[in-house]
Amino acid sequence: MNYEDIKSPIELKRLDISELRGVADYLRSRIISAVQVSGGHLSSNLGTVELTVALHYVFDCPHDKIIFDVGHQSYAHKILTGRGDKFDKLRKNDGISGFPKPDESEYDAFCAGHASTSLSVALGFAEAAKAKGEDMRAVAVIGDGALTGGMAYEAMNCIGSSRLPVMIVLNDNDMSISRNVGAMSNYLTRLRVSKKYARIKNEIKRAVETIPLFGDGALHLLDKGKKFFKRFVLSNKIFESMGISYYGPFDGHNIKELVEVFSRAKHYDKPVLVHVVTDKGHGLSSAAGDPEHSHGIAAIDAGNEKSFSKIFGDFLSDAAKQDDSIMAVTAAMAIGTGLEGFSKTFPDKFRDVGIAEEHAVTYCAALAAAGMKPYFGVYSTFLQRGFDQLVHDVGIGGYPVKLCIDRAGAIGSDGVTHQGLFDLSYLSLIPNMTVMCPTDGNELKSMLEFSLDFDKPLAIRYPKTYDVEREHENVVFGKWEYILSEKSDVYVLCVGGRALNVAERAATIEKQRNERKHVRFNIINARFVKPLDTELLQSINKSGNIIITVEDNSVRGGFGESVLSYLNGIGKKASVGIMAFPDEFIDNRDVADSFVQAGITSEKLIELVKKLD
Amino acid sequence: MNYEDIKSPIELKRLDISELRGVADYLRSRIISAVQVSGGHLSSNLGTVELTVALHYVFDCPHDKIIFDVGHQSYAHKILTGRGDKFDKLRKNDGISGFPKPDESEYDAFCAGHASTSLSVALGFAEAAKAKGEDMRAVAVIGDGALTGGMAYEAMNCIGSSRLPVMIVLNDNDMSISRNVGAMSNYLTRLRVSKKYARIKNEIKRAVETIPLFGDGALHLLDKGKKFFKRFVLSNKIFESMGISYYGPFDGHNIKELVEVFSRAKHYDKPVLVHVVTDKGHGLSSAAGDPEHSHGIAAIDAGNEKSFSKIFGDFLSDAAKQDDSIMAVTAAMAIGTGLEGFSKTFPDKFRDVGIAEEHAVTYCAALAAAGMKPYFGVYSTFLQRGFDQLVHDVGIGGYPVKLCIDRAGAIGSDGVTHQGLFDLSYLSLIPNMTVMCPTDGNELKSMLEFSLDFDKPLAIRYPKTYDVEREHENVVFGKWEYILSEKSDVYVLCVGGRALNVAERAATIEKQRNERKHVRFNIINARFVKPLDTELLQSINKSGNIIITVEDNSVRGGFGESVLSYLNGIGKKASVGIMAFPDEFIDNRDVADSFVQAGITSEKLIELVKKLD
Repeated sequence: MNYEDIKSPIELKRLDISELRGVADYLRSRIISAVQVSGGHLSSNLGTVELTVALHYVFDCPHDKIIFDVGHQSYAHKILTGRGDKFDKLRKNDGISGFPKPDESEYDAFCAGHASTSLSVALGFAEAAKAKGEDMRAVAVIGDGALTGGMAYEAMNCIGSSRLPVMIVLNDNDMSISRNVGAMSNYLTRLRVSKKYARIKNEIKRAVETIPLFGDGALHLLDKGKKFFKRFVLSNKIFESMGISYYGPFDGHNIKELVEVFSRAKHYDKPVLVHVVTDKGHGLSSAAGDPEHSHGIAAIDAGNEKSFSKIFGDFLSDAAKQDDSIMAVTAAMAIGTGLEGFSKTFPDKFRDVGIAEEHAVTYCAALAAAGMKPYFGVYSTFLQRGFDQLVHDVGIGGYPVKLCIDRAGAIGSDGVTHQGLFDLSYLSLIPNMTVMCPTDGNELKSMLEFSLDFDKPLAIRYPKTYDVEREHENVVFGKWEYILSEKSDVYVLCVGGRALNVAERAATIEKQRNERKHVRFNIINARFVKPLDTELLQSINKSGNIIITVEDNSVRGGFGESVLSYLNGIGKKASVGIMAFPDEFIDNRDVADSFVQAGITSEKLIELVKKLD
Repeated sequence: MNYEDIKSPIELKRLDISELRGVADYLRSRIISAVQVSGGHLSSNLGTVELTVALHYVFDCPHDKIIFDVGHQSYAHKILTGRGDKFDKLRKNDGISGFPKPDESEYDAFCAGHASTSLSVALGFAEAAKAKGEDMRAVAVIGDGALTGGMAYEAMNCIGSSRLPVMIVLNDNDMSISRNVGAMSNYLTRLRVSKKYARIKNEIKRAVETIPLFGDGALHLLDKGKKFFKRFVLSNKIFESMGISYYGPFDGHNIKELVEVFSRAKHYDKPVLVHVVTDKGHGLSSAAGDPEHSHGIAAIDAGNEKSFSKIFGDFLSDAAKQDDSIMAVTAAMAIGTGLEGFSKTFPDKFRDVGIAEEHAVTYCAALAAAGMKPYFGVYSTFLQRGFDQLVHDVGIGGYPVKLCIDRAGAIGSDGVTHQGLFDLSYLSLIPNMTVMCPTDGNELKSMLEFSLDFDKPLAIRYPKTYDVEREHENVVFGKWEYILSEKSDVYVLCVGGRALNVAERAATIEKQRNERKHVRFNIINARFVKPLDTELLQSINKSGNIIITVEDNSVRGGFGESVLSYLNGIGKKASVGIMAFPDEFIDNRDVADSFVQAGITSEKLIELVKKLD
């Protein structure tokens, strides 16, 4: 059979189990070729091919719900559910998302992107099925990395006591995004490396084979098998302690074994965890050899773009040589936030807490309270997880935690779940918080220099890259800088390099019009989003003046509204225009196009000036 | 000795161990009398008296850090650390806070109020001590209820792998605020009720007594004792699985035993958990008999005030009789949110997930995705914990989760950590979110009626109480209602009953002035904070008109700024004034005074009108 013709799990289920190996091989090659073109998560998807084939072979989707945690391992699922033809445009605007999206397919049970949500989702589906009297299975596929997120534990706690037939597939590759950290990882490693594993696996396999596929007998025997298995393999019982039956570990690349295990677990009427061991990047030697670096593969080298992350990491490494109180904290994002080098040079000053942003924020607050200088390298979208801790532990105490927030603004191919378009809003609403945005690497360096002795909570937020390097004035608390000063009554207040580019290009366009009455712009780098440069604002708040704010954040609660509110409070005389992202979820997977669609362009800026004039 | 004279732990430490019983009795009577006057957390504080005495007897604060989780059990600690004389003004503006506050005393190691943060804080302190080469002990005192919060697990994961000498005192009273839920509670119960407990306790006690108090020998023997103890008592090993040594359970009211145990654990150089069993409300029969209802005791009956919580609970109970898809979810706040009755009438439709707001939000999203109608009863300040889940799981999917948000706005005696002054901001910045505020019980009922078939995410937020009941127009999506229509160019847009009271009283004051030219007000109930009633706003956006917004939320990102931004976008002609709480943390413990200090009063409203005129 031509495996390309499989357009739904129904067709998959018609195959003999012996053919599934071929399906998996086809999927693997398809994923490799697509990711090499479009970028995406390679190793995590290669690790879960057999797992996905086995799940779809056993369960009846979309009636049954498979919930992929994070969802960065759902490519095989997407191809098997009729989206193979769109796979060449993976993560593009006219292609498919790199994460599960219910509006893309009825087989995508729930939206995902952030980690550790799948168990809560699975319990919700199971609970609803019970209430409606439906016979449905909810299966959460969760990596060992996502188990470091506290939310997963909250859900396990509820699943364990619910007694509902939630099935958890623990996809254990000992490698979430960075190397897993923490006690849970050690625990799983102890399970995995047990010397008895190989022998016992054969024993349990034989035991499983004697269990009839259906009926109460199976459950009873499975319980017996479980006990016998665990007596040998498990020296600890963390899942059992929570009321969730544990089976495993099984070989995550042995489809036949997985089909058998899932078929039996499917008929278990209580919470069950199936522990599956996979190789990240299985079947592709370079990815398997270095899964951390091949976790997310960028599509095309972006040419001129320079990395803010690298500036951050390099600065902190230099600073730590002279200041023993500096510590770098990350939540499973050492590489992405630029801290990999730091982690190697200063292992004693570096802490990767796992996917645990809540803990990370409060931990940093206590470090700061005790006189250390903690820097938390984190993505904008993931810091949302620590919002309460920012308010309650950092903000109220006023502790000098330094948040270095990467992937802010529009983020491109990862799409809607990963946008960094809310951070200016959720940070600015926190009293005591200072919020800065650098426009380029030089400025980030100055801001980091400034941060070293700043004694209050501080957020520095920036996108992944910048393109133009400029000379800047020194960073002074609460002060903006003029980038372009003209004899003009138009003032453009820019937040970050992308906004600055929009304004500078608008100035160039107008100059090139070469007419006498072209629009001239004063361009201001609003490097402090909070507090505002009120002195400067007062100086330009004159009747006839036009003030336009440009930012890569949602309009609601962002920089522009803050400026407007301040001016209104002191008696607004200037006209104010706000350019920001609309109050919508933005699934645009192209950064440049995101700005065009949001109307944040040089042309629109010129239009707005003329409209307000 | 007169125990009132103990002004610091130094004096406590001078006492003979035999005198500590007397200290505890004194503290208990002092707490009872203070709480009966000022209100506060009675049962949790009575449960931890001996624990606190023993900790201060053994550890050297403020050099050592005792971190009380939530902090609602820190009264004995406060009295022992020199604040006994201020105890009659507990939770009042000129008295002491009901929670630990570092700016109140150097003995309060860290700010608290929300649950499950103490382990992260303790690890931060321990990490900083290690970095600075200090010999210091960080002790987290955490209730079994707070262990249902995922953040505690994130921290345990990191503590376990850190190998740092963090000491966790698990204060297990099987009763956090409501009855604990979930697998962790079952697990602890299994430990506690073990038939072997009593016998083994004596055995371990004898073993402990043979251990010398100091030196390496103690550690070695303790490990031996531990193993022997656990072999009998513990059928499960959840803490050990995470790399944290477990000792217990011990009698939390036996000071001598606690002093012995803590003295030994103090010299253990790795993470250790001491499991202590206490009675909530110990020593006061009424509180011990009904700890849930005596958890938080209100100071004075507030007379006219009616409960929004009760309206919510009653409505949902009625609605659930007719609609099988309704489910009520709470995070350990069944009584506080008004869901106690519902929980008894409909145990199958009620889920208390524990102190687990993250899970609760996503769980609700999945319930909604599966066709149920989930209502999440939650306090404004605690919903901050679920912010990312509101964005990522509820918002992006657009699932019809109904958030019924209690204790919104200024909350009074609990102070700064519990203020509900950010919710309009953090909810309004979420695309797809509808945000409503009722002014009274009738209106809340109408809004809940409206919510039943509303098919998108919806937040209804209200303070604990209201005082005036009004007749209202039907609730229509995105439409406000006129409360008072006058021939006037002044429009006051009010969010919630407290704002409405301010406006109505201003109108009355002006009328009573009985002059010809008194200010007349159009008073509008802005029942939808999102979306705004743009039609109405357009109709009043006229040159010469004055529009004033009044809300009990922080000014940053709140209702007023949203109105201002909308008007600015369409070409603002009216003058706009915003009355809201300032962008500061508000530690005011009196609701009425909070409004006065924030300048949200009828007098200030009249002033603002005159200023804008």
